[in-house]
This record gives sequence, C-alpha cells and structure tokens, in this order.
Amino acid sequence: MRTTIKDIAQATGLSITTVSLVLNSKGKKISAAHRKLVEDTAQRLGYRPNRLAVGLLKKKTNTIGLIVPDISNVFFSELTKGIEDAGREAGYNLILCNSNDKQALELEYIDTMADRGVDGMIVAMSAESYGGRAEESFSALRKYGIPAIIVDCFSDVDDFSTVAIDNEKGSRLAVEYLLELGHRRIGCITGPLGPKTNDNRLAGYTEALRGRRIEYDRRLVYEGDFRYQSGYAAVPALLEQKPTAIFCLNDLMAYGAVKGLRERGLRIPEDVSVMGFDNIFFSEMMDVPLSTVEQPVYQMGGQAARILVEEMGGREERRHILFEPALKIRQSTRAPEAQEGTGTNGKRKLPVGNAAG
Amino acid sequence: MRTTIKDIAQATGLSITTVSLVLNSKGKKISAAHRKLVEDTAQRLGYRPNRLAVGLLKKKTNTIGLIVPDISNVFFSELTKGIEDAGREAGYNLILCNSNDKQALELEYIDTMADRGVDGMIVAMSAESYGGRAEESFSALRKYGIPAIIVDCFSDVDDFSTVAIDNEKGSRLAVEYLLELGHRRIGCITGPLGPKTNDNRLAGYTEALRGRRIEYDRRLVYEGDFRYQSGYAAVPALLEQKPTAIFCLNDLMAYGAVKGLRERGLRIPEDVSVMGFDNIFFSEMMDVPLSTVEQPVYQMGGQAARILVEEMGGREERRHILFEPALKIRQSTRAPEAQEGTGTNGKRKLPVGNAAG
Repeated sequence: MRTTIKDIAQATGLSITTVSLVLNSKGKKISAAHRKLVEDTAQRLGYRPNRLAVGLLKKKTNTIGLIVPDISNVFFSELTKGIEDAGREAGYNLILCNSNDKQALELEYIDTMADRGVDGMIVAMSAESYGGRAEESFSALRKYGIPAIIVDCFSDVDDFSTVAIDNEKGSRLAVEYLLELGHRRIGCITGPLGPKTNDNRLAGYTEALRGRRIEYDRRLVYEGDFRYQSGYAAVPALLEQKPTAIFCLNDLMAYGAVKGLRERGLRIPEDVSVMGFDNIFFSEMMDVPLSTVEQPVYQMGGQAARILVEEMGGREERRHILFEPALKIRQSTRAPEAQEGTGTNGKRKLPVGNAAG
Repeated sequence: MRTTIKDIAQATGLSITTVSLVLNSKGKKISAAHRKLVEDTAQRLGYRPNRLAVGLLKKKTNTIGLIVPDISNVFFSELTKGIEDAGREAGYNLILCNSNDKQALELEYIDTMADRGVDGMIVAMSAESYGGRAEESFSALRKYGIPAIIVDCFSDVDDFSTVAIDNEKGSRLAVEYLLELGHRRIGCITGPLGPKTNDNRLAGYTEALRGRRIEYDRRLVYEGDFRYQSGYAAVPALLEQKPTAIFCLNDLMAYGAVKGLRERGLRIPEDVSVMGFDNIFFSEMMDVPLSTVEQPVYQMGGQAARILVEEMGGREERRHILFEPALKIRQSTRAPEAQEGTGTNGKRKLPVGNAAG
C-alpha cells in the first residue's frame, strides 16, 4: 500500500502537521534534525506525494488532454507519439481520448477533460466537426478558458493556435511534378468533399493545372472516401478518361488504385503513374514503392505539445504553424509514353503488352 | 473561465456552505426552494464538479494508466483503441504512456501513474522487460497494490491477470498448414531471441515439425528482429537452404522477405510460399495478399479493460485469458512444385523462368 504522511508521523514519532510541513517545503521553523529525520524516513518508506492533492492545491495537474478521431489510424498514432514524447520532456502526462470520428463524443470529451482539470488540450477534430459544425467544437473549448491547440487541418482559427500541414502546397507540388514529367491527363481520387484536409488537397491539384493553363476536367476527378476500397473502385471510371497518371489524395487509396490497375493488366509506372499523399509506413515497402507527399507527422505532434506548454505557461499570443510537405519520389511515377496529341518525349507509342518493362 | 461554487453563491445570494451542501447531495436540511435555486443556477452557469476534489474525497479517479512500448506500432494502437472504447463504456479515461521500449521509462511511468492515483493499470511490457528483468517491472507494479493487467505476452504471472494471444498455437497452426500443403523445407525468420512473443512463436514452429517427425534444421532458421529490413536481409542465406516456404514470425518481416525473393526473380507463391504472423492492416492489400495468423488485437484490448474494471471493483481472483489465433489464408501460399526427394503432387519440376504462372 502507499506510504502516507500518517505512516511517516508514526515511524518518526512526530506530528502529522510537522511531517506535512517538511514534505511540502514549508518547514522553515522545524529543526534541522527533525527535517532530516522526516526526509530520510520518507525516502526509506518510499513516500511519494499524492498528485491529486498537489494538483488541487496548485491548480495544476501536469496533464494534457488529447482528443483524436481514431488512434488506430497510423497518422494519429504517430502524431500521438510525437505529442507524448514532447509532453513527457516538459513533465506532462497525456489523457488519450478517441472520438471515433463523432462530434458528440468529441464534445463530451472536452467537458470531461475540463472536469479533470487538464492544464491544456490538443484536439484533432472528428470528420463530423467541419464546415458549419466546427464552431460548435470551438465554443466548447472556449468556454473553459483552458489553453488548446487545434492540430491537423485548421489554420484559420484566430483564438486557438493551430499546427497543420500545408495540404494545398503538398498537392500542388505533387501535381507540378507529374506535369513536369510530361503528364497532361492526370486523374485524381479525392477523399470525401467537405473536410478541409480533402478540400485543400483538391485545391492544390486544380491550382497546379491552372498554373500550366490546363483545363480542369471534372471527369478526371473521382470522389473517394480516403479508404483503400474507394481507390480500387475508382479505377474503372477513371480509365475511361485515359489518364497517364493518377494522383490519390492519400496513400491508402493509392494502394487500392494500384491493385485495380494491375487487375486490368496495367503496369505501374510504365502504363500509368500513381502518386499518393501521406507517406505512411507501408508506402516504401510496396512491390513498386509509392511516390507520395511526406508529412512530418511526428514533428507536428512535438511542435503542438511545445506550443501548448508555452500557452499553459502564460503565453497569450496565438501561433499558426504550417508544416511544409515534401515530395518523396519512388518508383511508381515516371514520364508517360508519348501519346497522340500530348507527345512530349518523341517516343513512338508501343502497343500495350509489348513495351519494354 | 470555470464556474465555481463561489460564483453560484454570489449569483444566488446564498452561502458557499449551502451551495456546496446542495451540490454534493448533502443538503437534506436545506429548504426545497433554496435547493432548486442552487441547482437551476448551477445549470444556467454551466457548473461542473471539480473531479480532482471528488477524486481526492472518494479515493477514486476513474482513470486507467496504460503503458505501451510504442503507440505508433499498429499492434499497440489497435490494442489501445480496444482499451479506450471499453474503458469509456465503463466510465474510465485513459492516461497513455509510451515507454519507447525502455524498461527505465516503464518503471518511471508506473511510479507516475501511482502518484496520479490511477485506479488501475494496463501494461504491455517493453522489449527490455523480459527474462530476468521482468520481475523488476512486476515488483514495481506490486508495491502500490493497484490492480494491474499484463497484456500481450505473459500468461504465467500468478498475482496479475494476463491477457495474451496463444502465440505458440498460432505458429503451430501456420506450420501445420504449410506441412499439409506438402512443404517439407520450411524456412523461418524469427524476431530477436529472448522475448516471449518470439520464443513462443518459434516453439510453435519446432513443435509442428516434431509432430510430423521432421528433423529441426537450424540452417533453415534465420534470426531477424521483427523489422522489415531483417526479413529482406534473411533471403540470401535462407535460399541457400532451398526452402519451398518461408514462415516469418511477423508480417513486417514477411513483407521484407517478399521483396527480397522478388528481386531474385522468384515468384510468390509459385516458387516460394510466404506466410506471416499478425495480420496487420496492410497484409490484405499487398500485391499478393499475405497468408498470415490473425490476432484479435482490438478484442484483447477490450477484454483487458473489462477485467481491470472488475478488479478495480474488488474482484480478488486473477484471470489468465489466452486468445485463440486464427489462420488467414490468402494468396501467398500454395502447394510446392514437386521436387526431388520431397515430391508430393507428382508434377515434374519446371526450370525456373519457364514455369507457367
């Protein structure tokens, strides 16, 4: 059982008040001999202060409440690791809340975290908490006056600091790279329209095309849902539009697209280039390692925790950090075979099935 | 800012004592009118009780401390999700601690969780906390008398409940399945020797061979480290032993082995069957979907949380749950081509490179 102040009082023969004063560093009037006796006994008996009592007294619990949509998603588990590591360095523990992508649960957790007296919160909003509904989650956070950082997608909330990736730029870089290789008909498999992650990535795609004065062709854009299966399902419809490259707004859908293309006898990258977004851990282990956009997720988590620590320490000014994405070019992309009307490298188009691998 | 009892006293004109008595359901002597006034005001001002104070009073914090080796590893993030979901249902929040596979950090976290007054702990031990060192972590847990469940690997600790998978049986089933297909030279890529997960899985391999009176050939066993790269590195050495199948003690190493085999022009499963263990989410999305052993990880997490809830409620008896693994047969395994001395299906062996796909 835990050693209490009472145990130390009994063992030393001193009063509970004396022991308490010494252990709470308020024992200036206690004799040096008694102070030493209490300290030695406390150590011998393995006494550790009750952090609940300390928290109540100091109005500080050294706890960060973290709310994520799905801890089993590699993006959020990597983010969590970054937050936990940086939090620990600063002396904070993490209460982990999994909203299962439901706003109702997210709101409930915000209340619970406040009740528990967390010193700060980090929130990655659920898929339901976007558009008109985002404000509801922000107000829930505001009403407690507890420092909170919004991670992952938002970068335009004035009264909270935000840590996000520049999704639009990531997509733009990817599509500019494909254009540079000579691709002109670039298919795009999106996530569900609405949430900012998706919309910003889609904006990067259209912006890159506009930069090259290539008309946006909505038949080349297939609305997926960020899941593997939707990348696979997108293939038949997209192939009718004869794309030479397919840009998928996350890696999981790219895996599905690769599968669908191969089942139709198409080679990657010889027949169709495929590019993803996220660089999750499997992308480099694929049979044809996937070219993608890398997000520094672990670093984002660490940065969010460090900003929160500053705000819990009293910093009033809000910060908006936008991490730079970087291209990770592997083997799933290359220049297209020359095609009628879009020839860029002068090669004659070989009949499918006869082209050199 | 948070609404306090003081705010309610001010708003109602009643004393702090009166308000406190009503809100703590001890206001039997307070008039019904005053009770109603306090309750209505509390609701209007959004008052919520301070859970730290409640926790201190009731010696219960409704918190579970969870220590895992690496939250970014899909196995542990899925386990965590199972624990969080079941914990929430029972009214508990989770403090997540990432030991980074270091025993020193694990021990530090056990102390910190006890200081925070968690009602129970769930621990997946670090890679360093096995063999002779396991006892150190167990004693650390014991000294606080807080209910604790050991998850993942241990099933033979008397004074803690354990939730694990039957790793030995999983391996045995996998190797028996390969033997049934007609394989006789089955390579094995292991994790680091020592930790129980690995040793139990390896035991299943040798046991299955023994069951068929096939002599254990240590040249067919390559010591990896559970990482992708070690599966890849194992291929040249194993191929010298001419295996017709390779059983990898986790899926990640199987991905590496597939890569290494393909780089040598070998087809899976035509030339070599490959089997993994874990069934992590990518295994079904591979170019050749991986046959593997499935662990019900999410369910294990839920079960661990539910047992802990019982023990926090006073149950003294310890339980040892061993989850049954199940084979997940996909396309990376099949009967071997007939070979000299091991012919099982009477087919003539075709020269490599000419065999029908």
